[in-house]
Amino acid sequence: MEPSSPTRGYAASKDDLMARLARAEGQVRGVARMVEEDRYCMDVLTQIAAARAALDRVALGVLDEHVRHCVVGGHGPGTEEERIDELMAAVGRLAGRRA
Amino acid sequence: MEPSSPTRGYAASKDDLMARLARAEGQVRGVARMVEEDRYCMDVLTQIAAARAALDRVALGVLDEHVRHCVVGGHGPGTEEERIDELMAAVGRLAGRRA
Amino acid sequence: MEPSSPTRGYAASKDDLMARLARAEGQVRGVARMVEEDRYCMDVLTQIAAARAALDRVALGVLDEHVRHCVVGGHGPGTEEERIDELMAAVGRLAGRRA
Amino acid sequence: MEPSSPTRGYAASKDDLMARLARAEGQVRGVARMVEEDRYCMDVLTQIAAARAALDRVALGVLDEHVRHCVVGGHGPGTEEERIDELMAAVGRLAGRRA
Repeated sequence: MEPSSPTRGYAASKDDLMARLARAEGQVRGVARMVEEDRYCMDVLTQIAAARAALDRVALGVLDEHVRHCVVGGHGPGTEEERIDELMAAVGRLAGRRA
Repeated sequence: MEPSSPTRGYAASKDDLMARLARAEGQVRGVARMVEEDRYCMDVLTQIAAARAALDRVALGVLDEHVRHCVVGGHGPGTEEERIDELMAAVGRLAGRRA
Repeated sequence: MEPSSPTRGYAASKDDLMARLARAEGQVRGVARMVEEDRYCMDVLTQIAAARAALDRVALGVLDEHVRHCVVGGHGPGTEEERIDELMAAVGRLAGRRA
Repeated sequence: MEPSSPTRGYAASKDDLMARLARAEGQVRGVARMVEEDRYCMDVLTQIAAARAALDRVALGVLDEHVRHCVVGGHGPGTEEERIDELMAAVGRLAGRRA
């Protein structure tokens, strides 16, 4: 497998993304364990916030590579205009807006 | 196991929370698979958004039961004042604010 | 005017809320001035973030008083069940979810 | 005034941004009026959400033009690398993360 293949945007940090995702998955499992063990709600919410933050860091990592390789680098489907529209729609969703 | 034990807030929907968490964990694993397979960034982001939404629904479920059982019901540690402060801090964190 | 009237939830901090809202309005006007003067995008975004944070603090203040006076205090329309549902819908909207 | 000046990023939609900002300012004033008149908390929160959504649309509009003119178009201060870092920091803040 060629990690810097031009067909995808975030090759450079694939290992990093995989590590963050493994951590996020572990955190979600940790939430399930806490619910199973009837832990105090506020502690469960703190753990959920940690899992959500881990996912958001993955999303920002994916977006970062997308900007570098697809939007600025010119790789990927569609015209430049379409790629920017697609990027902004993704940013709007991340920001909790329907763009 | 006694599902309506007064020591925790969200007994009523424990099964539901566990089911949502299993789904969220599956979605996080789905993201990892997509990254592993070098899938298109925008599709990865859509899947991350689904996982994050699943986690948020878990958080809102936990908070809902907390309000019913601890804040209104009067179970849980601390005074009523402290429980409301704690609730608002959790809401602030959910809303992306440090309260 | 009776500031601690039972007909509304956040009487205690009305002055505080009005002060925060005046600040938020000033910040929105500040954004408009920066756009008018063609200021650098990133500086405009920083100012928008400040205005948004001010509004979120107002929202959390309103919600805090609502919990104290309506949900816990028992004032306001509807049954306790309905008030909690309404609260959670508001929290979900604040958190960027349709609950 | 030259609307498509290369010294700033979002010239094309300046009028649009100013209109959205005027609307957001009106909405913030509407919130203040509702608080002043002791309106029901939940209605105040709905109005705050409208103001916040208006501000977010302004932020996304500013960011959109920033991507088109500065990041892709190559205008603005710094190297391409720095502009992408700056963009991602702004996206992270919009998404409620410290990037």
